Amino acid sequence: MEKACKGWEILNADDFRDINPGDRILMGPGPSDVPARTLQAIAAPCIGHLDPYFLAIMNEAQQLLRYLFQTENELTIPVSGTGSAGMETCFVNLVEPGDEVAVCINGVFGTRMADIVTRIGGKLIRIDAEWGTTIDPEALRQAIKDRNPKVVAVVHAETSTGACQPLEELARISHDAGALFLVDAVTSLAGMPVAIDDMKIDAVYSGTQKCISGPPGLSPVSFGPAAVKALERRKSPVVSWYLDLSMVRDYWGSERKYHHTAPINMIYGLREGLRLIAEEGLEQRFERHRLNHRALVAGLEAMGLAMLVPESIRLPMLNAVRIPDGVEDINVRKVLLNQYGIEIGGGLGQFAGRVWRIGIMGQSCRRRNVFLLLAALETILKTEGYHVQPGALDAATAVYDQVC
Amino acid sequence: MEKACKGWEILNADDFRDINPGDRILMGPGPSDVPARTLQAIAAPCIGHLDPYFLAIMNEAQQLLRYLFQTENELTIPVSGTGSAGMETCFVNLVEPGDEVAVCINGVFGTRMADIVTRIGGKLIRIDAEWGTTIDPEALRQAIKDRNPKVVAVVHAETSTGACQPLEELARISHDAGALFLVDAVTSLAGMPVAIDDMKIDAVYSGTQKCISGPPGLSPVSFGPAAVKALERRKSPVVSWYLDLSMVRDYWGSERKYHHTAPINMIYGLREGLRLIAEEGLEQRFERHRLNHRALVAGLEAMGLAMLVPESIRLPMLNAVRIPDGVEDINVRKVLLNQYGIEIGGGLGQFAGRVWRIGIMGQSCRRRNVFLLLAALETILKTEGYHVQPGALDAATAVYDQVC
Repeated sequence: MEKACKGWEILNADDFRDINPGDRILMGPGPSDVPARTLQAIAAPCIGHLDPYFLAIMNEAQQLLRYLFQTENELTIPVSGTGSAGMETCFVNLVEPGDEVAVCINGVFGTRMADIVTRIGGKLIRIDAEWGTTIDPEALRQAIKDRNPKVVAVVHAETSTGACQPLEELARISHDAGALFLVDAVTSLAGMPVAIDDMKIDAVYSGTQKCISGPPGLSPVSFGPAAVKALERRKSPVVSWYLDLSMVRDYWGSERKYHHTAPINMIYGLREGLRLIAEEGLEQRFERHRLNHRALVAGLEAMGLAMLVPESIRLPMLNAVRIPDGVEDINVRKVLLNQYGIEIGGGLGQFAGRVWRIGIMGQSCRRRNVFLLLAALETILKTEGYHVQPGALDAATAVYDQVC
Repeated sequence: MEKACKGWEILNADDFRDINPGDRILMGPGPSDVPARTLQAIAAPCIGHLDPYFLAIMNEAQQLLRYLFQTENELTIPVSGTGSAGMETCFVNLVEPGDEVAVCINGVFGTRMADIVTRIGGKLIRIDAEWGTTIDPEALRQAIKDRNPKVVAVVHAETSTGACQPLEELARISHDAGALFLVDAVTSLAGMPVAIDDMKIDAVYSGTQKCISGPPGLSPVSFGPAAVKALERRKSPVVSWYLDLSMVRDYWGSERKYHHTAPINMIYGLREGLRLIAEEGLEQRFERHRLNHRALVAGLEAMGLAMLVPESIRLPMLNAVRIPDGVEDINVRKVLLNQYGIEIGGGLGQFAGRVWRIGIMGQSCRRRNVFLLLAALETILKTEGYHVQPGALDAATAVYDQVC
């Protein structure tokens, strides 16, 4: 007689096999390849979130994060969530209902910031620019001139377009207006300078799975003195208990007051990723990203492909390239993944189906990946019927040769 | 000449050593010991959050979570944050500003729920009970009888006291009042039955670092049909973008629409922890927790120690025991940690310094840990001058012998 069985019952636990993701090469918009040392670190035994050994690891992770942000900000911590949680952390802690907030929007992530501001009751001042361009400082100045924004927010590295936003003038305009300057450095951090003290950034958030090359799951956040003051002078409680930095900082600070259980193993991994960065050195790391970016672009352009954004505003770590007419987006990415194990990203929002996003971030940012991708793409595009111009690998080689 | 150096500069990256947390035995309120197989799983190579292999892993993790919750709820997912993020997820998705919410409070975690309700603009109806007792159903009935609560929230396993809350009658009263019944199963899940369909629970959240024995960092959440309907009928947007299940479920559902980058490696680990549970079987696992709990309590009481809560409401996995007069809380825990590698928990809130919280959760719930702890505690308490009554190990052995 058959046993009556509910939908949730597991009939044979052996049907679930060992985890075996294979060995992808991650050249999309993140996550990037995670180094073996970082994977080993996250597999270390889990211990208590108040264990003296773990508290020492927390201190070291903070010290290494301050190095990466080039900051003396005491309130520099990894938030227990992915980059979007870091975004939300900054807004919920700095913005109270009714506060005016100016958000610069030139891609998906600016749109997301605006969405958050509206949800928490902020009065949104939008500064829009065409996707794939940068925000004109004059547009910001005009938008806020008769307003009283508490925060001006901008994305440093717009992952949906590959555009790099110059920050210096926006910072000046924001401060002249008495506003805090908040920056999304999710994709830029650890691949180019995000020196928040020198750059007069009051609050910043990032992610671990881009140029830090850790697994996704944590969001480095840093608040400078003015942002901390704004937090301390709030009239209303922070709408999120989980992300309330006035409590979270008592756990990360010398009080070690329990708030929520820290993601222990993820913090092991972050510390290891940051240690690898310190061993390499910031300047060397940034130069490595610039070099591989130049070689990649030289190769893509030699093939006849066109970059989405002009050279002057191109990010090194995220390269958006136009999909040629007649070429099937999904086909190309499927062959790349299935035959070469390479992941690249599709377009987001209005660029879906129109661009590929090629990431060379952290561990993924290396000559052998640039070469493999150019070689594979050349072959696949030919199969797709695209007339590939010759010389991609020579063009990339020429870039590397300049520095050798 | 000395080089001028900023506070954030790393002078020698080699000062940061390899991660080496040692081999603790985690018998506190969580995290619990993480099995080697789970640690190996989280160290598998990171891949993309839209990679077909990862999408299959997500499906399996959901299937295993439904098994653990004994539910057919489609919306059953791990939220990308720790247990407190799961708590916040349930409230922000179900509660709109002005909604009445009844919160049962008999410990720290009830207090936290009330805090969240207030922050997001819910009208709080408090049902207080002395810490270390359970909520009287009659008190709930009285508190809501002329009110219109949208949600009634209660903690199943109050980690701050070790009290187990019977749920059946509270569920009935809540539904009779037209309210959704929301349960905190952070500590109970995977150590005792949390069969949410049978128990008429509309929404539930948990954590990975208790009886699932995964690293902290994810929060399993499940919404039943009535909760989903409430979500879909909202008039205002969910205040948290990051935790908005109306979007998160489009990534976990068949649409696979990008929301935020999933914590890939943590989900590998969750799946492995759940696979271990399926291999053991739910009934066997619950019985293992009951057995080790009875042995532990028999040993502690034989020594002359007193449990905080009466037997009828004791949780199996979290055992709060009173610290005898004259014994120094911190001393005892330090010696346990430094000489035996055992972590137990101190008291929280009004029980700080007055109780120890001994967790036997998931992988930590085993005969050898119960014996080691009893043996170590006996020795330490003697050194502290406490008159230990003899026979603790015999009493524990007698419990194990009953079933052999």
